[in-house]
Amino acid sequence: MTAPTLSLADRMTDIRPFHVMELLRRARELEAQGRDIIHMEIGEPDFPSPPPVVEAATRFLARGDVHYTPALGIAPLREAIARFYQDRFGADVAPERIVVTPGASGALMLALAATTNPGDSWLLPDPTYPSNRHLVRAFEGVARAVPVNADSAYQPTVAAVETAWQPNTRGLIVASPANPTGTLLTQPEIGALRQSVRARGGQLIVDEIYQGLTYGVDSSTALKTMDDVFVVNSFSKYFGMTGWRLGWLVAPEGYAREIERLAQHFFISASTIAQQAALAAFSPACLDILESRRQAFAERRNTLLPALRDLGFKVASEPQGAFYIYSDVSALTDDSETLARRLIEEAGVAATPGIDFGDNRPRQHLRFAYTTSQSRLAEAAERIRRVLA
Amino acid sequence: MTAPTLSLADRMTDIRPFHVMELLRRARELEAQGRDIIHMEIGEPDFPSPPPVVEAATRFLARGDVHYTPALGIAPLREAIARFYQDRFGADVAPERIVVTPGASGALMLALAATTNPGDSWLLPDPTYPSNRHLVRAFEGVARAVPVNADSAYQPTVAAVETAWQPNTRGLIVASPANPTGTLLTQPEIGALRQSVRARGGQLIVDEIYQGLTYGVDSSTALKTMDDVFVVNSFSKYFGMTGWRLGWLVAPEGYAREIERLAQHFFISASTIAQQAALAAFSPACLDILESRRQAFAERRNTLLPALRDLGFKVASEPQGAFYIYSDVSALTDDSETLARRLIEEAGVAATPGIDFGDNRPRQHLRFAYTTSQSRLAEAAERIRRVLA
Repeated sequence: MTAPTLSLADRMTDIRPFHVMELLRRARELEAQGRDIIHMEIGEPDFPSPPPVVEAATRFLARGDVHYTPALGIAPLREAIARFYQDRFGADVAPERIVVTPGASGALMLALAATTNPGDSWLLPDPTYPSNRHLVRAFEGVARAVPVNADSAYQPTVAAVETAWQPNTRGLIVASPANPTGTLLTQPEIGALRQSVRARGGQLIVDEIYQGLTYGVDSSTALKTMDDVFVVNSFSKYFGMTGWRLGWLVAPEGYAREIERLAQHFFISASTIAQQAALAAFSPACLDILESRRQAFAERRNTLLPALRDLGFKVASEPQGAFYIYSDVSALTDDSETLARRLIEEAGVAATPGIDFGDNRPRQHLRFAYTTSQSRLAEAAERIRRVLA
Repeated sequence: MTAPTLSLADRMTDIRPFHVMELLRRARELEAQGRDIIHMEIGEPDFPSPPPVVEAATRFLARGDVHYTPALGIAPLREAIARFYQDRFGADVAPERIVVTPGASGALMLALAATTNPGDSWLLPDPTYPSNRHLVRAFEGVARAVPVNADSAYQPTVAAVETAWQPNTRGLIVASPANPTGTLLTQPEIGALRQSVRARGGQLIVDEIYQGLTYGVDSSTALKTMDDVFVVNSFSKYFGMTGWRLGWLVAPEGYAREIERLAQHFFISASTIAQQAALAAFSPACLDILESRRQAFAERRNTLLPALRDLGFKVASEPQGAFYIYSDVSALTDDSETLARRLIEEAGVAATPGIDFGDNRPRQHLRFAYTTSQSRLAEAAERIRRVLA
């Protein structure tokens, strides 16, 4: 059978799959053959949805009244998010600036579609979460990589941003905590980036989807000190609600009413059940659960980080957030994809090769997610040790 | 306070809000003052979610395991949709061609983003559901209106398409049943449109989101006789699952694996709860409920259509599907928006003015949705009678 000739838009040439999906398929094959695979490639907490959230959804479903909501989200949820910013971070965010979206991807799509003309470029750190640059491309923007390395905690510096800035640059997208590196930007660092970007007439988008998942350092938000940036957030990671598909965008004043039009056409509204359930995510009972899960992540990190280092995986800039360790594997291999394949086949351990995160020395890096239990992490380290021995 | 200067993309100039939202806000104000408003502006079934769907969701939630799904959707749901095409319509659709999406909007976004280069034009009937042309614009395509009138049941003819076709035309988007007109395309008509579009190297997208909601005529699908078109569908209307945000795209062979990449970046996946719940939507118990609801819609249509005609609303092409009546109000007013405002204020009846659906004589048209009970429809007709008297 010959492959059909597809008539595709040019953007499709630039929009790449997650390479880790191929590894994941292989992992599933091995599992189907009875092999035990330890999944450290998955960017998803292993915990079930918090019981208060599930209970709220169940109560709501019992009424059976699952209709559309306003495009910007239900008012009580927008208010609850605003209160959370105030209570947790001391940040003043008007509910009117909050747009509830189907996941953080939806939030970033809205921010980019509302601000990006064809040919406008956005600066993004490299390595970074790959979808961000693909969403820029989807709306005919140009994603321009700012290579970042361990010496700046894998975060862009003002100098690097100013060097990369061009007349067509629309702005900068940063993440704190970042994926794949787990590193943070301090408030002064974000402030300096914002100042530089704004001075050039650009926009700063801050991805805070791992907010709340920090270890040994307090979690924060750019919104505490600045109100002219876009902030993308999510119920998926800290709140443990991945499959519910719910996130939000905080827009500078005035933008929400423009973005409302886009949200109407893109999504009509976010999932009503997820919105109703998320109201319970901010309850004291739920926040207690989330705090104990955060502590569990902290312990896992404290197990995995020395274990990896001991095995020859170099981690030059210590991750302080999210649930990732981005390791330099150059002492072990000159091709992280081959190593990742070997780890699956021989050790039954799945990790994500650097190629998924950009073009900045991807073959030297492998990302480990500590989204599995302490005992499985220890087992993974032991299995890797035997393979590398 | 002066409005802040917003830095917006050019596309935002062309992306308009739903005008009916302004009317809806006014309706809510009046309701807050104690007025009774009969809502005939809402494109959403008034029925609660089907109990078998709610029960399936509740059972799934009890396990608490609400994680991401594959980007194309869970395999059992893709298979269930394929079986439904076979059992209900005798259409052969491989599950591999089915992409489960967050609502039909998500499905159309994927089809358009995958195929549309900047400047490519898509032909759309006018009047039509407004989001379709705005999604074309979002991906830098150009929406080109093909005016359609009662003499062709508000559907584009081959001649009209061929007249409108230009070198940069990428394809044609049609809907059957259509919104706002409730009219259908016959299988031979779709076949002729497809042949014309394909002969010009273009693509046909068929919006079937009101599939199943037809009255006095069997429901069908373009997929019964053609496999090289994109079909957009939804669990919102026939299946009564609006707030769950779940739809699907059927793509011609080979496209799904390209679209998978886009779906990963746009959505990660559709709501896991909605996908699990939708498995129950095809159960015999649920289909029985849906059939009785379809009959209720048929009865409402049979009540409202003569009542409106009797009041001077002209309906030249009888709607056979969806839950809309698109009426020509030129015997009553020279401005349907003013009439809509008057009906809200004086009769407490909300309907949607033609302006929301395009530029083809919008001031002469008003859309009534029969998404409320028989008795409310009769009450609405009586109130309108008193106002127009």
